[in-house]
Amino acid sequence: MLSDDTTDTIAALATPSGRGALALIRLSGPRALEIAKSVLTPWPLTPRRATLVTVRDPETAEVLDRPIATLYEAPHSFTGEHAVEITTHGGAIVPAAVLAALVSAGARPALPGEFTRRAVLNGKLDLAQAEAIGDLVDARSPSAQRAALSQLDGGLSRRVAALRTALLDTEALIAYDIDFPEEDDGPIPRERVAKSAATAAASLAQLLATAPIGELVRDGALVVIAGPPNAGKSSLFNALLGRARALVTDVPGTTRDAIEALVEPAGAAFPLRLVDTAGLRETADTVERLGIEVSERYLRDAHAVLACGETAPALTETVARVHALTPAPIVPVRTKADLYGVGVSAETGQGLRELLDEVYRAIGTTPSDPDTPIVTRARHRASLTAAAAELCQFQDTWAAGAVPAVIAAVHLRAAVHALEEIIGAVDTEDILDRLFAEFCVGK
Amino acid sequence: MLSDDTTDTIAALATPSGRGALALIRLSGPRALEIAKSVLTPWPLTPRRATLVTVRDPETAEVLDRPIATLYEAPHSFTGEHAVEITTHGGAIVPAAVLAALVSAGARPALPGEFTRRAVLNGKLDLAQAEAIGDLVDARSPSAQRAALSQLDGGLSRRVAALRTALLDTEALIAYDIDFPEEDDGPIPRERVAKSAATAAASLAQLLATAPIGELVRDGALVVIAGPPNAGKSSLFNALLGRARALVTDVPGTTRDAIEALVEPAGAAFPLRLVDTAGLRETADTVERLGIEVSERYLRDAHAVLACGETAPALTETVARVHALTPAPIVPVRTKADLYGVGVSAETGQGLRELLDEVYRAIGTTPSDPDTPIVTRARHRASLTAAAAELCQFQDTWAAGAVPAVIAAVHLRAAVHALEEIIGAVDTEDILDRLFAEFCVGK
Repeated sequence: MLSDDTTDTIAALATPSGRGALALIRLSGPRALEIAKSVLTPWPLTPRRATLVTVRDPETAEVLDRPIATLYEAPHSFTGEHAVEITTHGGAIVPAAVLAALVSAGARPALPGEFTRRAVLNGKLDLAQAEAIGDLVDARSPSAQRAALSQLDGGLSRRVAALRTALLDTEALIAYDIDFPEEDDGPIPRERVAKSAATAAASLAQLLATAPIGELVRDGALVVIAGPPNAGKSSLFNALLGRARALVTDVPGTTRDAIEALVEPAGAAFPLRLVDTAGLRETADTVERLGIEVSERYLRDAHAVLACGETAPALTETVARVHALTPAPIVPVRTKADLYGVGVSAETGQGLRELLDEVYRAIGTTPSDPDTPIVTRARHRASLTAAAAELCQFQDTWAAGAVPAVIAAVHLRAAVHALEEIIGAVDTEDILDRLFAEFCVGK
Repeated sequence: MLSDDTTDTIAALATPSGRGALALIRLSGPRALEIAKSVLTPWPLTPRRATLVTVRDPETAEVLDRPIATLYEAPHSFTGEHAVEITTHGGAIVPAAVLAALVSAGARPALPGEFTRRAVLNGKLDLAQAEAIGDLVDARSPSAQRAALSQLDGGLSRRVAALRTALLDTEALIAYDIDFPEEDDGPIPRERVAKSAATAAASLAQLLATAPIGELVRDGALVVIAGPPNAGKSSLFNALLGRARALVTDVPGTTRDAIEALVEPAGAAFPLRLVDTAGLRETADTVERLGIEVSERYLRDAHAVLACGETAPALTETVARVHALTPAPIVPVRTKADLYGVGVSAETGQGLRELLDEVYRAIGTTPSDPDTPIVTRARHRASLTAAAAELCQFQDTWAAGAVPAVIAAVHLRAAVHALEEIIGAVDTEDILDRLFAEFCVGK
């Protein structure tokens, strides 16, 4: 469990370790200036001015590096604390030596995510924005990068805050009615409360409706390439990768039974997790072994299947077999010239763009309203679902009119609380612990 | 081969790729400001001021990141050109997207070492300093880090420049004599030239004498742990590693027949490349198989051998056998209490410090004059050796007095030229190509 002890001053390497020209070390906390002073010359630095400094071991005064250092005075830093960023020479020894000097001068090595955690605790970021930083670093596709940036900009936070305000307004209507039931201007009409709740519910549903596409943005839509041996599956796989070139990333955890890659054509709303079950193919030599060849797990989970065949009869056969194994939409791909399915040439690239369009159509995503942020995290989806359920219960209770308003309003309060979990407006110690455990050190 | 075309503006990731909180991208060249302007807002930036910016794709205007950017105006940058450093969020996608935006705006992906090369071409660094940057990044021990930093500070360059001046002064004495042989104040005494050359030769020899220790600083002194099976070799290896803890780095290219680690006790002049021939041990079960057990290659190349044994007779036997296989000094290590050799306890750490001291004594390095920079590069050693040889030839020719002064002076000129190769005072196109080919991109 992480400590919320922000009286410590923390330090960490913020760039990946390994061979590189430069490395960046972060120092943050109440004693950052004092610690930096005992290690860096010249001192003091002008805030925010990149300055060539000498780093010395605070005990032996040995010169460790001549890097660029930048001072950020509280609260005008990432964490909101005093902070110093040092861009050292790279490699195995120099960054470690500079970090060791900071620790020797009184800094503590930072825990994973501790810098971002402090930014949250100091009100520089809300929870959803902090999660967006993690998502940005872990993004594996341009659409995931876009979604994370929008969330970091506060897109989701503003939408959730607006929903929360709408629910609080509804609650206020009821409270007004409870507190001042005999006021001159009469009770608040029940329909006005119901309408206010219905508007909020519609807005909440619209946001929740982005969760399925948000999941695709994070993980990619699973597209399985299926077909008999020598039907051109691997050629198609490679051609699609080549088509989407710069946007291909490896999928971790790829099994030895299949080759996977994440591809995202320019402008697509989410990436495709393309699977070629090549490893299995080698053990099969007849169309009859299709069920063995393509792992049933992949087919069962697929968002779409590319059924490959060289001729119309072969393709018809393959489509029928795949159809028996998965409810996913099937896109027939004619890998040699024929009259059935999308015709492609792995060699010339002909038809590939059309095939990708067809796959996106088959998955059947409707482009979301560009003004609506996308819900990409299971945590957010869970909180929104809980809020929607409570709001629904409130609407039902309110419509029935069988219980006092103050009882019905408990559901509204619970819905507000669920929303607050997303942005961290409530006591969020547990959420913080869970959230930052996923981070890497230096973040 | 690298191009010296500095009309291009170059961009590269300067930190290692991989998962990390941040990444640093460098942009440098005549069009750096124009390219940055088409990608970053706000613009212009205040020079050297770390500024939160938005990076957009120059074609689609899509937001790619919200990083910190710092502008360095020529000539006040690392390269001496206009430069922008962008500290982006880390991971696989964001740094690549920002780099792609810079390229799309007109930058060219940098070649390995191209930033440092430009620093040399623009007179910000000399050749030896540029090499020091590579050495700093590749340093695997604190002593290598120290030597590289001293070289980056110009320690070696100043020494070589002083030597060059001394040789030019000697040459001037001769030239004066040639040009004005009938001057009133008479010819320059031949002894004065000889003495001037001798002083320079002594200084050159002193610098060259640091080359063997420089080699040890770069690669470590090879210390082989030898002894019969179950003589406590691996325990000793691990204990010595533990003793020198934070200063242990893996040695690349470690063979499967042996375990290697680079260790450097605090304050040591160079690291030890410690080898435990553990893999071989398992196939041997008698003292007689020692010659097979410890690879002959390791023993032949060793700077010192730690001969392990539990008892005095076993140790005497081991020392004799090792002695037959290597000219290296042998340090007998008593791994159980006895009266012969250095007594150590891998468990308590007793005797380990003394053993390390004994190893350094056995290798027999004399601590170099702290004011003399260390020659760590084979290239520098070769140039210094060439200079020393030419100077020696000059001295011989001069002493013989058989050829005209102008002929003898040719050797002085060659010696000066050899020195100039080190710091790059001559046409160094070939040296530049060889030098920067070793660098990583972004440097």
